[in-house]
Amino acid sequence: MTNREERPRVVPVIMSGGSGTRLWPLSTPERPKQFHAFNSDASMIQETARRTSGEGPVDFLPPIIVCAGRHRGLVTEHMRETGIEPSAVVLEPVPRNTAPVAAIAAELVARLHPGALALLVAADHVIADRDGFVAAIARAAGIARDHIVTFGITPSRPETGYGYIQQGEALAPGVFRVARFAEKPKSEVAQAYLAEGGYSWNAGIFLFSPDTMLAEMAQSRPDILEAAHDALAASPQDADGTIALDPALFAACPSDSVDYAVMEQTRLAAVVPGDFGWADVGSWSELWRLGPHDEGSNRLRGDVLAIDTKGSLIWSDGPTLAVLGLEDLIVVATGDAVIVAPKHRAQEVKDLLEKLRSR
Amino acid sequence: MTNREERPRVVPVIMSGGSGTRLWPLSTPERPKQFHAFNSDASMIQETARRTSGEGPVDFLPPIIVCAGRHRGLVTEHMRETGIEPSAVVLEPVPRNTAPVAAIAAELVARLHPGALALLVAADHVIADRDGFVAAIARAAGIARDHIVTFGITPSRPETGYGYIQQGEALAPGVFRVARFAEKPKSEVAQAYLAEGGYSWNAGIFLFSPDTMLAEMAQSRPDILEAAHDALAASPQDADGTIALDPALFAACPSDSVDYAVMEQTRLAAVVPGDFGWADVGSWSELWRLGPHDEGSNRLRGDVLAIDTKGSLIWSDGPTLAVLGLEDLIVVATGDAVIVAPKHRAQEVKDLLEKLRSR
Repeated sequence: MTNREERPRVVPVIMSGGSGTRLWPLSTPERPKQFHAFNSDASMIQETARRTSGEGPVDFLPPIIVCAGRHRGLVTEHMRETGIEPSAVVLEPVPRNTAPVAAIAAELVARLHPGALALLVAADHVIADRDGFVAAIARAAGIARDHIVTFGITPSRPETGYGYIQQGEALAPGVFRVARFAEKPKSEVAQAYLAEGGYSWNAGIFLFSPDTMLAEMAQSRPDILEAAHDALAASPQDADGTIALDPALFAACPSDSVDYAVMEQTRLAAVVPGDFGWADVGSWSELWRLGPHDEGSNRLRGDVLAIDTKGSLIWSDGPTLAVLGLEDLIVVATGDAVIVAPKHRAQEVKDLLEKLRSR
Repeated sequence: MTNREERPRVVPVIMSGGSGTRLWPLSTPERPKQFHAFNSDASMIQETARRTSGEGPVDFLPPIIVCAGRHRGLVTEHMRETGIEPSAVVLEPVPRNTAPVAAIAAELVARLHPGALALLVAADHVIADRDGFVAAIARAAGIARDHIVTFGITPSRPETGYGYIQQGEALAPGVFRVARFAEKPKSEVAQAYLAEGGYSWNAGIFLFSPDTMLAEMAQSRPDILEAAHDALAASPQDADGTIALDPALFAACPSDSVDYAVMEQTRLAAVVPGDFGWADVGSWSELWRLGPHDEGSNRLRGDVLAIDTKGSLIWSDGPTLAVLGLEDLIVVATGDAVIVAPKHRAQEVKDLLEKLRSR
């Protein structure tokens, strides 16, 4: 057993920037999906904060949360219920994707927790096996001083909705150099990846030391690094931990993902493949898939009655919802809005919402 | 042109006793379907009162309304908006079907409007062609002194949800003796009726003189007549027109329909066939059928968006309701409850409601 000083110290940087339009009407701009409870009594951001807190193979330090300015109150309220106090809450005046967040995270972790690693995680992912996740972080920490580590999910199906990572040479037990990042594939390509082996889903979770991230981004996207740095430098931290990024300076930052801006450019990309029950809860059909299911393969939630119904997600956040004779449908009701659509068209909920807004 | 004295004077007796459970969640025990607007901006009871008011081929006198005690307030409110003042509002402490209503209607019409005919109508029927309806009443009035006239609807399809009336010998132009009442038929039987001709749907609308109804019921169901008489005699009319039937005495009255208790027994039954756009709005599939329909054969109502949807009823009484890729479904949403079911199973909405109540 290593002593406490030798265990990796990790600062979770929880990215709460998603809008979750495909999970309308539950997810709304005022209260997007990470502030809803889909899989337990806790909201997704609460689940995320809890799974990246405490001590064990990794010592988690207080998190940094990055969110839209309008969600400051929700973050406070949700974190208060967990008893977890963030060391900073960074407010984005506009969304600029994940690369600027990585740069700001690196600077802040170096400033607030010298010597610690940064763990970039989304606030709206499901991870069923917390111990497996923490074990993967501990494994990654072994090389994170001089690599940027991404986490790969062992594919359980030829999913076309995720990007894939092909692993290269082994760097340590269970840790590999990244051979290649592959975009969301067509179905046949995804099947070939599974048959070939050595591919995993890109979960969008990153572990790195601040120095390495800053140095690599300085090589690949100095423009983003500089703009993010300027925005942060102009934005003091309030007494309550808030850092409201300067609107003009942050708006001037180019928008890009950490995958494109850094991971696909750097020679220091590594991957830790694993299987810890990860899912990106992106749509109602995905929520149906996660279950639990009744004997008719339905996922039911709330004040719901389902008769002669199969393979459907029947979800109420308020009204009594009674359905009869349905198959492979999603029905979601709140007090304000109701959607009904075939499960295989769940991605189009986003379009429904856009059409409603443009009316 | 006849002068005013020679035109038939008719007192509408509006029966507002239906509970409309198949139209849940819009129709509820607190506010059943006759108090909702399905086909215009007016509620069904308002449409019923308006179509049986005014002068023309028939002079309509102020109506008598028969309703459940709990709906007294709704009747007042809905009638106030029409400007039509009932001559009496009879409150039923319990439902006892239509035969006791016919007896009470006969007594009250004789008392309040001597010499007038009684027109028994339901508060929850659609009649698209008001002029055709009034013309049929005028035709029926010619023989209503010594017959009990029912109105037959020329069938537009082999409907199995209605009873049928077979017409016998002609009594006057467009007026026939009733040869036979036929129960709701199976599909093949209904098709045979249409092929044979001389059959019409039993619309459950009756025109009669009080004396004839009282005399015929005295023959066929003296028990109902006596119990209804005793209940009415013990229940004085308040200053505001209300007659709250004595609970114990009215509860003691046998429950039966005027069809069974009188029409199938009397030799004085006559039928006036016609086609005045009548419909018994009994279910959501019937409401879909009535239209209007969009180019996808959908009936849409309220704050609704329907994409790639066909043959469906999409009805909101409040929430935003957005649907995608549906076919032949009914979706109805209120702020309290939502139902989704295939259109051909619309009759089972009643069962859904019962299951919900028994939870």
